[in-house]
Amino acid sequence: MKDRLPVIGVIGGGRVGKSESKMAYEVGKLIALRGAILICGGLGGVMEAAAKGATEADGMTVGILPGPDKNSANPYIKIPIATNMGHARNAIIAQASDGLIAVGGSYGTVSEMALALKMGKPVVALNPPCNLPNLRTAETPSQAVEMLFSKIS
Amino acid sequence: MKDRLPVIGVIGGGRVGKSESKMAYEVGKLIALRGAILICGGLGGVMEAAAKGATEADGMTVGILPGPDKNSANPYIKIPIATNMGHARNAIIAQASDGLIAVGGSYGTVSEMALALKMGKPVVALNPPCNLPNLRTAETPSQAVEMLFSKIS
Amino acid sequence: MKDRLPVIGVIGGGRVGKSESKMAYEVGKLIALRGAILICGGLGGVMEAAAKGATEADGMTVGILPGPDKNSANPYIKIPIATNMGHARNAIIAQASDGLIAVGGSYGTVSEMALALKMGKPVVALNPPCNLPNLRTAETPSQAVEMLFSKIS
Amino acid sequence: MKDRLPVIGVIGGGRVGKSESKMAYEVGKLIALRGAILICGGLGGVMEAAAKGATEADGMTVGILPGPDKNSANPYIKIPIATNMGHARNAIIAQASDGLIAVGGSYGTVSEMALALKMGKPVVALNPPCNLPNLRTAETPSQAVEMLFSKIS
Repeated sequence: MKDRLPVIGVIGGGRVGKSESKMAYEVGKLIALRGAILICGGLGGVMEAAAKGATEADGMTVGILPGPDKNSANPYIKIPIATNMGHARNAIIAQASDGLIAVGGSYGTVSEMALALKMGKPVVALNPPCNLPNLRTAETPSQAVEMLFSKIS
Repeated sequence: MKDRLPVIGVIGGGRVGKSESKMAYEVGKLIALRGAILICGGLGGVMEAAAKGATEADGMTVGILPGPDKNSANPYIKIPIATNMGHARNAIIAQASDGLIAVGGSYGTVSEMALALKMGKPVVALNPPCNLPNLRTAETPSQAVEMLFSKIS
Repeated sequence: MKDRLPVIGVIGGGRVGKSESKMAYEVGKLIALRGAILICGGLGGVMEAAAKGATEADGMTVGILPGPDKNSANPYIKIPIATNMGHARNAIIAQASDGLIAVGGSYGTVSEMALALKMGKPVVALNPPCNLPNLRTAETPSQAVEMLFSKIS
Repeated sequence: MKDRLPVIGVIGGGRVGKSESKMAYEVGKLIALRGAILICGGLGGVMEAAAKGATEADGMTVGILPGPDKNSANPYIKIPIATNMGHARNAIIAQASDGLIAVGGSYGTVSEMALALKMGKPVVALNPPCNLPNLRTAETPSQAVEMLFSKIS
């Protein structure tokens, strides 16, 4: 489809400090302002902040949940997808995205960055928990979004 | 979330005759008119007809795709989720739905009806390919949608 | 590999009466005596009876578990594979098998039979919970095993 | 089960140089000599070398394959499990293992190490492609196996 909207994954820790929360919020907002769909793990921390940012800019938000219940999604997820597949849902987030932005994070984020890079998707990170070949890093949310969209269009 | 929208799965064959296609279209439209999110396998046949019906009523449509590429989704899918998980994606459709409507179908539809019933979700079928305990059958799209929504609210 | 051992799925209810338990035990034993690997869902009922039969004939038994913990496997499972993928593990059992034998069962068994038939695998059932196109039925464990092996070799 | 055998994951690149191939072979052999079950991705490179080492020490080898066909397994895999789930099978390898040893590797290996650490499993790496918190590194195969078994018993 020529006119399919981009799907952008936002990944990062389920618990998060103020600074990363603010960055995730900005990332989410900028993704929505570009008219793209935000996909994430649907829970708290970076996932919630990014979904909040996107929602406040009237964007679409999708949460790929690890558990069996759609009501585990944070309040800013418009489309909750309960998978009941645990951590295997990380592979779905990577597969479904055209590109991903990571904000901080730990093991789960690393697994998603690595899976996405393995699949050949562009990944841009803010405060990445580790370095990986072809992982691009940015200093600000707007730079991250700029860098990612330049790779997928 | 008190005010989360219902998520309704529509399942059925990837190739389909005129009569079932028309039923699926009506089912999709009625789901959208109720303000619910339509989730399906994202491909052709019943999935495409239902998504078309929902789209024409301004509804939201989600396609949980078996392959790696979001562009395999039919043109009426607004949110394509490429899983690259093959038939295991059937379990996601069942898990993510509050209830399901089946239109015709064959093996894949049977697997989804059975998985959904196993998970305790209500399932209503039009022209079901087999009978299963607690599977409810309807004669018309509007009856099917009526029956399903009475079970999930 | 020319000399790979057949992998035979045995599916059926997690709780089971005496007669089906005995059938499953016989099926498991006969699979082992043919030198094939028995794969199942790893839990109780038909899965345990079949694994017990196979083990007592010195056969290999694999359990594809829905939960996160290998210790949820029944005592006759030599290779426990904890997937933490819930019902999606049914698709793995079907995919990994060269053919399947169902003993009684309910929704879960139906989903596995349907998924396996969708994948083009032969399925033979004893006391099937429903009828499906190309599902073959047998009267005795030895007839079921005979029928299945004639289809996979 | 008190007497269940340990299940040890071996992860690493699908293509591999001589030195890492030799290390993987030794790791596989030592796992088998400890009486544990070796589980891996079932394909080439580190997966094949480790499975060869285990097989030559009469060990049990399980391959969790990304594709639909058990015949894609390397010749040293005794139990091929075709999942048709692509990279999501990495999560199964991590989940099914009591602990993992990584030999070299790239994105896929990083994703498995991160998933396993997220699940709280011990992971020991030889020539790791990146550093992660709680990832232990070893200099030799025997040291790696020693370190891992001290963590799981």
